[in-house]
Amino acid sequence: MTTPFTTPSDVRQASRSGSFVQPTAGCAPGFIQANMMIVPQAQAFDFLLFCQRNPKSCPLVEVLAPGQQEPACAPGANIATDLPGYRVYRDGVFAEERSDIAALWQDDFVTFLIGCSFSFESAVMQAGIPLRHVDQGRNVAMYRTNLPCTPAGIFQGPTVVSMRPIKSRDVAKVVEVSGRFPLAHGTPLHVGNPQALGIQDLAHPDYGDAVDILPDEVPVFWACGVTPQAVAQASGLPLCITHAPGKMFITDIQG
Amino acid sequence: MTTPFTTPSDVRQASRSGSFVQPTAGCAPGFIQANMMIVPQAQAFDFLLFCQRNPKSCPLVEVLAPGQQEPACAPGANIATDLPGYRVYRDGVFAEERSDIAALWQDDFVTFLIGCSFSFESAVMQAGIPLRHVDQGRNVAMYRTNLPCTPAGIFQGPTVVSMRPIKSRDVAKVVEVSGRFPLAHGTPLHVGNPQALGIQDLAHPDYGDAVDILPDEVPVFWACGVTPQAVAQASGLPLCITHAPGKMFITDIQG
Repeated sequence: MTTPFTTPSDVRQASRSGSFVQPTAGCAPGFIQANMMIVPQAQAFDFLLFCQRNPKSCPLVEVLAPGQQEPACAPGANIATDLPGYRVYRDGVFAEERSDIAALWQDDFVTFLIGCSFSFESAVMQAGIPLRHVDQGRNVAMYRTNLPCTPAGIFQGPTVVSMRPIKSRDVAKVVEVSGRFPLAHGTPLHVGNPQALGIQDLAHPDYGDAVDILPDEVPVFWACGVTPQAVAQASGLPLCITHAPGKMFITDIQG
Repeated sequence: MTTPFTTPSDVRQASRSGSFVQPTAGCAPGFIQANMMIVPQAQAFDFLLFCQRNPKSCPLVEVLAPGQQEPACAPGANIATDLPGYRVYRDGVFAEERSDIAALWQDDFVTFLIGCSFSFESAVMQAGIPLRHVDQGRNVAMYRTNLPCTPAGIFQGPTVVSMRPIKSRDVAKVVEVSGRFPLAHGTPLHVGNPQALGIQDLAHPDYGDAVDILPDEVPVFWACGVTPQAVAQASGLPLCITHAPGKMFITDIQG
């Protein structure tokens, strides 16, 4: 009864064979998807400490042992092949996009799987609160803020937030519902005032697409999984590998 | 209007000068106290990962940078002198108890501050739920269980739990109240059946003191801050330093 791409292993197997290369939004509904970040062991303590100090931006789904490619959250999966796309950064600069990283793998690679907002978005919509970027078929709007992350070792940089316009009557409810998903960034960081975050113009996001904000709506800001990538770039890491934008790792965890 | 030992800095200063050497239970009410664990940087990634994988046993209050002695949670404090007592373990074996560790300090020492149960205990009592070991003036009863911690690198071992007898009508309330304190181990691990945890005899705890259990009471088990010490010993670490039993680090964090 299984149709293609409705289970996590469908998506992972198709990614491994090269037949699935698109973003994973809407795939394997009900399963937790994760941002991925790989750093060499020399930087792994600092990055793990960074995640521990910035749990809203970097909620840890799993950290793999050095060299390990099979996550506990997806038995049988291979982190080096089972995402639809990868990005390689060298000295903090984007170097290349690849469909797998098997040829680049090093025994000292430590993989971090970091929660993403898909889980709480579906719960919010099920609670009767519409999400503009979904309705408009756009990527969510994301902004660099003037809120510094708590640094750890070489890792430092600004918090990146995603913004969703919410009707004022629904703000309390969206806080409550999103708060049930700490692995998907949890409650908002900020409600209502972009200037307080150093955001000059909501119409010009730093990542993703701008969306319309209607007169009875309030901009609500959540910590965003793009933060660790932005921080890795700002920190000039010799080498790190991430998922390609929107092309997440799909776990076997329901939630 | 301040009397001695009612503020965190009172206790820390008196510990530093050597005039305060007793357990910290009841000191500086309202402020978070922490278990302490120091490991050399070579083991720090593994231990941080262990804490991340076992958050109920090892809720992280703060992790200091390598070599750092002043915690962010207590500006002006010194982790090497401001606890009432320290224990040094070599190759997993208890070596000595000291009143400070300034002479042992290494630039690669990484300090972990791990939440303890004092915060939730005062909230539980304020909610009208009596705690037997407090009423009897004893240490809480603690037991090694057959629940293995999730291992990380060299760190592995059993989960240690604390047990408090709770009237059956109060069990739901004690779950709710303790759940508000994730840094103090949060909700119970288990309610009611010691055999399910591999505990043969509640009258003979592995640590602390036995307490009476009355006919209308249920034994309730929480993950315990002794776990990381037991695991460090079981893992045969070349060197680690902890607080002496009951002699916690007192932070400036209210909660």
